[in-house]
Amino acid sequence: MENRIGLEGQSSSCKIVKILGSQSNVHGVSKIAKARSTPRRIFWIILVVLAFITATFQIVSVVKKYVTYPVVEVVNKSRKTQVAFPALTLCNTNPTSMMKINQVILNNTDILALFQFIQTANVGEIKTKLQSHQAFYENFPMVDIGHSFDDLVLSCRFNNADCGIQNFSRHFDGTTYFNCFTFTGNTNQMQAGIDHGLSLILSTGDRSPQQPGSYGIYDITNPSSYGLGIRAQINSPDTPPTPIYQGFGVPPGYSLNVGLTASLHTTLPFPYGECSTSKNQTDKNAVIICLQQCQQDILIKKCGCKTSALPDAHNSNIPFCLNIKNWRSQPDLFQGKDEVHLEMIECKRQVMKEITNDRSYEDHCECYEPCMETSYDQSISMSYWPEEFYQFSLLETLSMKAKHSSELVKEAFDTLNSTLQKYTDYLSQGIEVEYDINDQIKLARASKIIRQNFMRLNVYFQDLRVTEYTKIPTYSMASLLSDIGSVMILWLGFSMLSFIEMFELIMVLIMHLFRSHLYILGNKSG
Amino acid sequence: MENRIGLEGQSSSCKIVKILGSQSNVHGVSKIAKARSTPRRIFWIILVVLAFITATFQIVSVVKKYVTYPVVEVVNKSRKTQVAFPALTLCNTNPTSMMKINQVILNNTDILALFQFIQTANVGEIKTKLQSHQAFYENFPMVDIGHSFDDLVLSCRFNNADCGIQNFSRHFDGTTYFNCFTFTGNTNQMQAGIDHGLSLILSTGDRSPQQPGSYGIYDITNPSSYGLGIRAQINSPDTPPTPIYQGFGVPPGYSLNVGLTASLHTTLPFPYGECSTSKNQTDKNAVIICLQQCQQDILIKKCGCKTSALPDAHNSNIPFCLNIKNWRSQPDLFQGKDEVHLEMIECKRQVMKEITNDRSYEDHCECYEPCMETSYDQSISMSYWPEEFYQFSLLETLSMKAKHSSELVKEAFDTLNSTLQKYTDYLSQGIEVEYDINDQIKLARASKIIRQNFMRLNVYFQDLRVTEYTKIPTYSMASLLSDIGSVMILWLGFSMLSFIEMFELIMVLIMHLFRSHLYILGNKSG
Amino acid sequence: MENRIGLEGQSSSCKIVKILGSQSNVHGVSKIAKARSTPRRIFWIILVVLAFITATFQIVSVVKKYVTYPVVEVVNKSRKTQVAFPALTLCNTNPTSMMKINQVILNNTDILALFQFIQTANVGEIKTKLQSHQAFYENFPMVDIGHSFDDLVLSCRFNNADCGIQNFSRHFDGTTYFNCFTFTGNTNQMQAGIDHGLSLILSTGDRSPQQPGSYGIYDITNPSSYGLGIRAQINSPDTPPTPIYQGFGVPPGYSLNVGLTASLHTTLPFPYGECSTSKNQTDKNAVIICLQQCQQDILIKKCGCKTSALPDAHNSNIPFCLNIKNWRSQPDLFQGKDEVHLEMIECKRQVMKEITNDRSYEDHCECYEPCMETSYDQSISMSYWPEEFYQFSLLETLSMKAKHSSELVKEAFDTLNSTLQKYTDYLSQGIEVEYDINDQIKLARASKIIRQNFMRLNVYFQDLRVTEYTKIPTYSMASLLSDIGSVMILWLGFSMLSFIEMFELIMVLIMHLFRSHLYILGNKSG
Repeated sequence: MENRIGLEGQSSSCKIVKILGSQSNVHGVSKIAKARSTPRRIFWIILVVLAFITATFQIVSVVKKYVTYPVVEVVNKSRKTQVAFPALTLCNTNPTSMMKINQVILNNTDILALFQFIQTANVGEIKTKLQSHQAFYENFPMVDIGHSFDDLVLSCRFNNADCGIQNFSRHFDGTTYFNCFTFTGNTNQMQAGIDHGLSLILSTGDRSPQQPGSYGIYDITNPSSYGLGIRAQINSPDTPPTPIYQGFGVPPGYSLNVGLTASLHTTLPFPYGECSTSKNQTDKNAVIICLQQCQQDILIKKCGCKTSALPDAHNSNIPFCLNIKNWRSQPDLFQGKDEVHLEMIECKRQVMKEITNDRSYEDHCECYEPCMETSYDQSISMSYWPEEFYQFSLLETLSMKAKHSSELVKEAFDTLNSTLQKYTDYLSQGIEVEYDINDQIKLARASKIIRQNFMRLNVYFQDLRVTEYTKIPTYSMASLLSDIGSVMILWLGFSMLSFIEMFELIMVLIMHLFRSHLYILGNKSG
Repeated sequence: MENRIGLEGQSSSCKIVKILGSQSNVHGVSKIAKARSTPRRIFWIILVVLAFITATFQIVSVVKKYVTYPVVEVVNKSRKTQVAFPALTLCNTNPTSMMKINQVILNNTDILALFQFIQTANVGEIKTKLQSHQAFYENFPMVDIGHSFDDLVLSCRFNNADCGIQNFSRHFDGTTYFNCFTFTGNTNQMQAGIDHGLSLILSTGDRSPQQPGSYGIYDITNPSSYGLGIRAQINSPDTPPTPIYQGFGVPPGYSLNVGLTASLHTTLPFPYGECSTSKNQTDKNAVIICLQQCQQDILIKKCGCKTSALPDAHNSNIPFCLNIKNWRSQPDLFQGKDEVHLEMIECKRQVMKEITNDRSYEDHCECYEPCMETSYDQSISMSYWPEEFYQFSLLETLSMKAKHSSELVKEAFDTLNSTLQKYTDYLSQGIEVEYDINDQIKLARASKIIRQNFMRLNVYFQDLRVTEYTKIPTYSMASLLSDIGSVMILWLGFSMLSFIEMFELIMVLIMHLFRSHLYILGNKSG
Repeated sequence: MENRIGLEGQSSSCKIVKILGSQSNVHGVSKIAKARSTPRRIFWIILVVLAFITATFQIVSVVKKYVTYPVVEVVNKSRKTQVAFPALTLCNTNPTSMMKINQVILNNTDILALFQFIQTANVGEIKTKLQSHQAFYENFPMVDIGHSFDDLVLSCRFNNADCGIQNFSRHFDGTTYFNCFTFTGNTNQMQAGIDHGLSLILSTGDRSPQQPGSYGIYDITNPSSYGLGIRAQINSPDTPPTPIYQGFGVPPGYSLNVGLTASLHTTLPFPYGECSTSKNQTDKNAVIICLQQCQQDILIKKCGCKTSALPDAHNSNIPFCLNIKNWRSQPDLFQGKDEVHLEMIECKRQVMKEITNDRSYEDHCECYEPCMETSYDQSISMSYWPEEFYQFSLLETLSMKAKHSSELVKEAFDTLNSTLQKYTDYLSQGIEVEYDINDQIKLARASKIIRQNFMRLNVYFQDLRVTEYTKIPTYSMASLLSDIGSVMILWLGFSMLSFIEMFELIMVLIMHLFRSHLYILGNKSG
């Protein structure tokens, strides 16, 4: 390369290329420049071109790989990570409190009138809908016939301390459960084990009908009602409760142990995936709630009414779809022989059917999962509770504990107490007795109240280890550049400095051509 | 390198190697060629050899890594993926219908004769086996004593519409459950929530013995029978049901909610793993069924008989192992004082024991998982059902609904109805009454029928997000080539074009030797 | 490069650098050395320095990546892997056997005296603690009032063979459950399905109080007791049982099916993660037990007493915290009007509270998970058991089977038997009868004993496929070297041999300087 002939003495650009090329570190290029025979030069030109094409293909493929933004999930079990105690939402599977209904109906002639009206109105298939709990709420949204907190929760213990109504917030669901109550512990994870969790004694508030013959109507098309129990849902305190979708049942007469193990899922936002990093939009955080709001918006747009089955739309002056507005003003119309079509109800049914069958609307809703989500694996098991041996003492404790003690607790306690009193009197006098039949029937009744109404729910961490699922990018910009570099070196012997080299070559060439041009111009003019 | 001396003028091959070597881009090689002192040349030769060895080791290690075909699992939660509603298989844990047995035994003297024969035959330990349900089926495969669909399913609702026997297919299991029924929704995933799933009211068809003293025999070695309930299994519609292995129990008197979350598992076929991509072999798709067919084949080969506990072998003229063929022709033999060995039963027991203890036969069965599998995570919970308040209405609805209404439904309804009628009459006359003791016993009996026989089963998607587990190769052929390239460059400064260079060197050398040879020959001949 | 001027003839170090530099394969370096104009040389020097800096940054980043020791989890479902049948630990949720208590208290005046003492002592809030099962154990550790094996397990079948007390080992828990029994199968995984698993018939040993009025005291602050049932835990045979933390309840009157699927988790020890590879420290293997031992050590250090709620500390001559040592010697002190502070109990409460709220002590405990862990996914479901039709036969079998048959089994069997005998006599005479009321009450009582005491527990593999979760390093030392190599080549055109080259250059330079020095010295001295 130590070519004696100076760059200045050369006139042909070809020579410049040849000289710089022979100095090139790009392997093939120096070969071409230094080749002494034409066939050998052609041979090397073909090779270099082929290598160039191959390298281009490989570079395109690594760039393609990069723009798919591949991720991989890394799983790690950590004892260090602190996870909040979950929120626990409790709903009575039977939405209405019989006691409240009795109070409300006796005092409210409006409601009785509407009931009678629906009974007689000729509305065809829709009648079942109009007799539902949802219809009641949508016509009388201000009348509360749901269960109260005191009816639901008889005793609450959390992390070895008492808890109460101040730890719960009300969650209203207008369709299936009415009043639900959500417990939030407001603490980070503590010790594992039943003793350090939440322990509740719950009541379904059910009372068998006193009057024979007064029986409720079973609607076979409603799969979630007509059972006795509490619907419970455990979810992250950051997300709103959705007991209709997720959750589990707590049957009466049993102690349900729910052992939790927490998981922390971290996903990556755009361009790696779809998730929202915003913290303030609590409701938007739950995709299901976000989609329901989207459904509500579609419903309002198409029918001009909203439904209590979906979250409240922002403008509250929109009427409910099942609200029968004008029944009082035009009773003749409804009670005529011709079937009356209630437009809004029809429209709503149509829209909901479309939404159910065609989920394409979801694309316009912009509902994304949060990028960081805590979930709780639940291991549920049951044991028979309370043991007969402890029933009396339990009822005594409960009836003393609660200020406004549940009617049911009182009834069961009084029944047991009066029977027992008699026999403890006998016993203190040293008389050995057995229960007589009447007392046995009484005891059986008290026992039935207990077994059909009361349950215990223990929720606790069974393992403090948190499983962290973290998505991490597997192919960074640095890796992309490194791979492109590797390809170029592999096929062309081309390092980053070779770029500069080519740039230098091109610059020298341009300068030479410019100078030659000036020389020619000078010659011409001279 | 611009060596003036032409290649033609050189006579020694060594010089050619030296010249081409000094032109080489393989770093060490040019060093060796251009080295002016022998120690420096030796130094560089040693280095190049060492580098060569290191590079070879590294290349071997990356090739080894490649041939293990490493994969990684990518997890993704998607709302877009559509997953089919699963198949639900229902079996009564009590395989036989008491009603059918009564009908069959009264009409079939053959069966009674065999029963009596087994009772008296001296067959030792095998007697328990011969008294089993399986033995009954293997001797009388044409006699159906299993539960009928109408006995099992009292009401069926799917996605807000009625469903019935036309949505179910019969799955027969000859050992444990006899008649099972499999529901297939034939729809892709729709909305989440209880309201859009499958809701069934089921019956165990159990009736407490009318006659005191007629009690069944409890076999302590049979862990799956003697309970009351339905065995249910949820599986992908593509795979056959295996209720004995997977599945869960549905106890009577409760409403069982099964919330589903779907997962889609995609694995890679050979060489990355073992799975079958074929779509048409439905049965082969379930490894467990495939292995059972393999077991059946071994049994048939070794004992000449098949068992109803395993899937049907292809040739149906093979007898069942528990079939007692010749009892009628030689009763004396069986009832003699010496214990009779039933060869086929003995042989089968032996073969099944071997298969259980030594799973090496599985290697010859060629049973692979399907490469694409849908699974459904189940979250099961219970609530007390039906609430007493709705029992009468439920029975009324069921007894009107079913054409061939279940005997049990009728009995419970009639009991309740007759009692209630009396009191509604009183009530309409304004007389306040309490149930008398007889009526209370009647009501208790009706209530017992309901609580011990009927149950509700709700199966629904609790989340429409599908978790996709996809295995992808982590080390492609392109990566392998790239890594080999990197190693060669790193240790030898060796790019792809260097290969061509070496090839050129070798070609020139061969041509030179050939020419020299011709020249020597020419001189000799000259 | 074929420079005619010998190294020897050169006197300036600069020239040596230039010549060797021009021979260099490090691209930029040869450019600098061979550059004929100063601007071009400066240009290339700047470029080479920039490239050096960039390369350094990239190398630092790959080294950083390496020292995080990244791992990835590979998931694989295998039929080949053999997994041991899990250990099953059974505890009665009611820790004490009523029968044993009656026996013990009648014979032990010491216990009665302490009971009376606690009743009357003025100890404030601690009284509840002193009345607990734990306090009983800590004062009388030698008195066994827990359930015996025969009371708990009525029948045991494993893999089609009988099993018994010889397959169980006792696990004592001094707080909640007292006597637990752990089954170990000592076999590797066999066939899947209920028939090849473990089938137990269990009893809670509960007996309703015979005397009316004698009722137990319900402590609302204790969330785990007062139910009827068995607490069961399934864990790897290698780890000690922790039924308080993990586990599920088995309610009486049901058959619980537990279908298992095994998983094998392999993690990597230091530096990839924290896990212990040692095999011999069985107790250390369970982090939860290790941490509890650590807690016990803290308690002993701070209060000088140990608690039965935590594993035994190594030195056994430490007293229990709830042990009331000196009550007999100074009764006046305790029964005085002033509230007595029991120091050890107070101290323990304080320490336990600190430990619960501040988990920082865990860092000093050196508790690591084992690197290889087997876990068992459980799918639990229930069915009503035993069917009334088979109750008599079941009781007959159980009462004949067990040598020391449970008192409860005997009672229930005798009740049923005496009633049935009467009616079978009638039946044999051809008289058709119905049960009279007294017999119905007897039958109901027998039925209640069965439904409130007996349960069946089936544990079996529902799938023989073992899911293997294996952590593997994703970035080995080889990859690190390869990446460093790539970076150097990419930015500097720097292969491994270039290192040697630089080394050579430096050596030649040093030798030259040394020789020049000698020459100068020679000249000076000459």
